[in-house]
Amino acid sequence: MTVTIIGIGLIGGSLALSLKEKGIAERIIGVDRNADNGAKALELGLVDEISTLENAMYRSQLVILAVPVDVLVELLPRVLDLTGTRQVIADMGSVKANIAAAVDGHPMRSRYVSLHPMAGTEYSGPEAAVHDLFTGKTLVFCDVGKSEPEAVLLLEGIADRLDMRRVYLETQEHDLHTAYVSHIAHITSFALALTVLEKEKEEQRIFELASGGFESTVRLAKSSPDMWVPIFRQNKHNVLDVLEEHIRQLNRMKSLMEQDDFEQFYALIEQSNKIRKIIK
Amino acid sequence: MTVTIIGIGLIGGSLALSLKEKGIAERIIGVDRNADNGAKALELGLVDEISTLENAMYRSQLVILAVPVDVLVELLPRVLDLTGTRQVIADMGSVKANIAAAVDGHPMRSRYVSLHPMAGTEYSGPEAAVHDLFTGKTLVFCDVGKSEPEAVLLLEGIADRLDMRRVYLETQEHDLHTAYVSHIAHITSFALALTVLEKEKEEQRIFELASGGFESTVRLAKSSPDMWVPIFRQNKHNVLDVLEEHIRQLNRMKSLMEQDDFEQFYALIEQSNKIRKIIK
Repeated sequence: MTVTIIGIGLIGGSLALSLKEKGIAERIIGVDRNADNGAKALELGLVDEISTLENAMYRSQLVILAVPVDVLVELLPRVLDLTGTRQVIADMGSVKANIAAAVDGHPMRSRYVSLHPMAGTEYSGPEAAVHDLFTGKTLVFCDVGKSEPEAVLLLEGIADRLDMRRVYLETQEHDLHTAYVSHIAHITSFALALTVLEKEKEEQRIFELASGGFESTVRLAKSSPDMWVPIFRQNKHNVLDVLEEHIRQLNRMKSLMEQDDFEQFYALIEQSNKIRKIIK
Repeated sequence: MTVTIIGIGLIGGSLALSLKEKGIAERIIGVDRNADNGAKALELGLVDEISTLENAMYRSQLVILAVPVDVLVELLPRVLDLTGTRQVIADMGSVKANIAAAVDGHPMRSRYVSLHPMAGTEYSGPEAAVHDLFTGKTLVFCDVGKSEPEAVLLLEGIADRLDMRRVYLETQEHDLHTAYVSHIAHITSFALALTVLEKEKEEQRIFELASGGFESTVRLAKSSPDMWVPIFRQNKHNVLDVLEEHIRQLNRMKSLMEQDDFEQFYALIEQSNKIRKIIK
């Protein structure tokens, strides 16, 4: 099978590696609006060639869009305009409502499958592509009722071959749950980095004193704003809802400390420890 | 050398392993007020024997306290009461002001060296002890001017043998910097866990959708309240100061989202990305 991947960054590049290594794709054509990224992807051997959207699509059975969600909303309808009745299109976007609305009613909507792999790192670009990024991770399928079974089956087969766990959600549920479980963690981490950079003017001290715990909590703050700002913008309503709750929790911890109520504070930490049974 | 370690949990137990493996201690005596922990430490081979404080101290050249900071404040003066002129005492406490005050003016103060290893995991107890916990990590020496050079030299030698980076701080600086770099990250993580547990009632969804990024940010929320509540209590002033800044940063992100000012929001994330050059 020939596969086109649009956007050869962390996700697109890692997917290219996996599709090749698992014997799913014989040929991978990369499309990237950034010529440097394209050249780099070719040099790194992530793709077999770099081509234009039109040329690449003409020759592919499967086309996967792995671009930031603001680009996706513009690009996906154009891709569907070029889609033939035997081709399958999928995206990797982290927020689904705007994307779903952008293709709703499109004559080729049923050739498109809405996906979101719960995988990534804090790095971006083709150099960030890694082997086995997806192994053991969850692949969310959204609104599968709107896609032709044949298209869904192809991607289910790929998910299984990549050893991914499949989860099925409707767009609205997806955007709600990912705000809770993924997007807020990024906000937390960005804010923690800003806090420490603001309060700790001696960078050498951060470097010397930062332990694994701090590094782990602040790791996501290295993430690219080009990827994340469009996510927060498109999922603004859900993210604000959970962010308000997060600020409320922090204020509660703050008042308990101010009141020297460390008994209640202890109970809160015990409560938060319940995350242990969910996250191994 | 015979070494007594008081408190055979994550830190004490890991230290016991390293002191043996690096050939620093011939014999390690464990002291633990929790008899189950003591038996477990013996069973795991972390210590050669379990004994009483008095008996263990009588036979040891070096005594290291690795207990929660609330216990430390009570215990360290008692340990110094039992200390002979050739013995060296050290602690591993994460907040230093109360401990320093508790032993200030003690006739054996100069035999005591105030230490804080910037290392740990979210687990606790003897089963949490791991090999090489300290390799490559920072060991903070506090107020070394108050300890006899001979005592400091012994612990510097041990730090070097364990491949730890040495940093020298006064107590007040230590408590300030660790609030910024370590304690706030725990608050953030506890609050994130509470937020997600509050908003996401479907635990199965958290389990399915949580990616490495979320797990990394929430990891510290598994930490023991027995260790952390005394730290927050003793470092309350500094922690509250940085917590206020953290809430301020989150509120700033929230208002920018509410106002749809994603240009400013982008700039904030770029600013937070500066943590990249400090944390590899």
